Amino acid sequence: MTNTIDQLARQLLTGEDKAFTIYSHKRPDGDTIGSAYALALALQALGCRTQNLCSDAIPDVYRRLTDQVPAEAVEGAAGFSVDASTPERLGTYADAPIRYCIDHHEGNTIEAAYKYVDPGASSCAQLVYALIVRLGVEVTPLMAELLYTGLATDTNGFRTVSTNYDSLQTAAELVRCGADPAAIAKRHFGTKSRKRMDAEQAIIDSFRYTHDGQILSAVLDYETRTRIGIDPNALEGINALVDQVEGVQFGIVVREYAPKKCRISVRAAEGLRADLVCAQFGGGGHRNAAGGEAVGDAETVRALVEAACEKELG
Amino acid sequence: MTNTIDQLARQLLTGEDKAFTIYSHKRPDGDTIGSAYALALALQALGCRTQNLCSDAIPDVYRRLTDQVPAEAVEGAAGFSVDASTPERLGTYADAPIRYCIDHHEGNTIEAAYKYVDPGASSCAQLVYALIVRLGVEVTPLMAELLYTGLATDTNGFRTVSTNYDSLQTAAELVRCGADPAAIAKRHFGTKSRKRMDAEQAIIDSFRYTHDGQILSAVLDYETRTRIGIDPNALEGINALVDQVEGVQFGIVVREYAPKKCRISVRAAEGLRADLVCAQFGGGGHRNAAGGEAVGDAETVRALVEAACEKELG
Repeated sequence: MTNTIDQLARQLLTGEDKAFTIYSHKRPDGDTIGSAYALALALQALGCRTQNLCSDAIPDVYRRLTDQVPAEAVEGAAGFSVDASTPERLGTYADAPIRYCIDHHEGNTIEAAYKYVDPGASSCAQLVYALIVRLGVEVTPLMAELLYTGLATDTNGFRTVSTNYDSLQTAAELVRCGADPAAIAKRHFGTKSRKRMDAEQAIIDSFRYTHDGQILSAVLDYETRTRIGIDPNALEGINALVDQVEGVQFGIVVREYAPKKCRISVRAAEGLRADLVCAQFGGGGHRNAAGGEAVGDAETVRALVEAACEKELG
Repeated sequence: MTNTIDQLARQLLTGEDKAFTIYSHKRPDGDTIGSAYALALALQALGCRTQNLCSDAIPDVYRRLTDQVPAEAVEGAAGFSVDASTPERLGTYADAPIRYCIDHHEGNTIEAAYKYVDPGASSCAQLVYALIVRLGVEVTPLMAELLYTGLATDTNGFRTVSTNYDSLQTAAELVRCGADPAAIAKRHFGTKSRKRMDAEQAIIDSFRYTHDGQILSAVLDYETRTRIGIDPNALEGINALVDQVEGVQFGIVVREYAPKKCRISVRAAEGLRADLVCAQFGGGGHRNAAGGEAVGDAETVRALVEAACEKELG
């Protein structure tokens, strides 16, 4: 049972809660961070006291913004979950009492007295923006930067299939309120750490085209990853490197995360089944993007997955 | 002397011209193509006859859209220049009589009886959209796809400093009219030819970090480029590969375009001068991005440019 955004706004404006603990989901991304900290500022503008909590540390790239948001811990403050679809997504705060919830994930299972979920929204930031407007709070430049960061990162710069009229319309309004689209894009899409660049180089160096260029595979073996010294969490999105070459029907990335233990990622072009390939490796996923695991060194596993894709191509 | 967009619209609605030859600029990009073909459709909706001309062939990636636009050559049709800043930019059509002009480049020198130039616009497509609205013509899905393609490509997916409220607001309206943001992004930003990928791999493989990682240089030597078989024109934007690594103050790309003849590109971080480095190689440009030329093989030239950057770093 969820509320409308108007009901949520009315409750915040007229209800008894004047202190909030606002939770972002674990392994926080731009959307949960931008949304939660902008919401804190908006509630503060209404005279409330707030603090932001997250199971994991806020990555450095967001700190320039989040460090500007005041925080005050209040005993018995109402829990407000932002962009988390399940209690488990709150990590160490999975058992915290949640009274308010705002999210854009299908099938949100968080129990809250006041809950607004719109799975049609491309980002939670979009929903928080709409909420702030209904609260009658002026969107400051800092709120706009936070929300635009959430919106832009969750749509990969307006490139995901979830990008719609509302995403772009909200982005425009946030620019009017002071967000700098070029600076935010440069920070989040135009900058790589030296280690990330080294990892991408290793992946690209390992490219192997087989089956007339229809299969492209890449590996990152254990030795290379540890030599580069990159945190496995910092490899997010790296699988996309095999997904951009014209004519490739199956893109494979094999990451040896521990000696002779590999994680497999497979991307398939329209009409082919990555999930069927990965099912052979105890995994699964979507038709066009799936994952699995295998025992063996990276090159051995690569050959196995290539063979599975070849069979699928027929 | 330029007109307002309302004057341009009024002239098109009430003037005597009922046939137009619409020119895109040479080496056409998404903006000149999308703008010119959408304009043609709008004028056709007003009962005019139009044809689109361009000095160079329309690249394949745009043909799926442009091939759907009808064309009719009419003797004595009025010339309409789109997104070209000078007559020279019209290439083989530099001497064609131009009666109408719409553009977003500062210092447009095209002489036309009716001319609308707004250098504040991030794309010409934005201006053509505003014009079509003023013409009272319904924006069809095909027009929306063409204009969104122009807008998205000219702002590099809403990432350039020219991206503003109007860019995003117009993009939202175009989505409402039928443009598919994810499909357009995939086509123009998420797809690389095999040859382009090979060239990027060669560039990345040649990465050399010097001066404590403050200088990053890359080369594409003549032998490698010809072995890959990529057209030099298909290397557009490849210099950006050295411009994204954290901590890099100078990014250098040396391309040996003919044996022992190199083109140099230098990017500099805020506060440093790429133009001063390139001046030593008979070139120049902007403070943060400049170019030059040098005689010698790629590795020899790389070492020279590295040394020049080191001196600049002090």
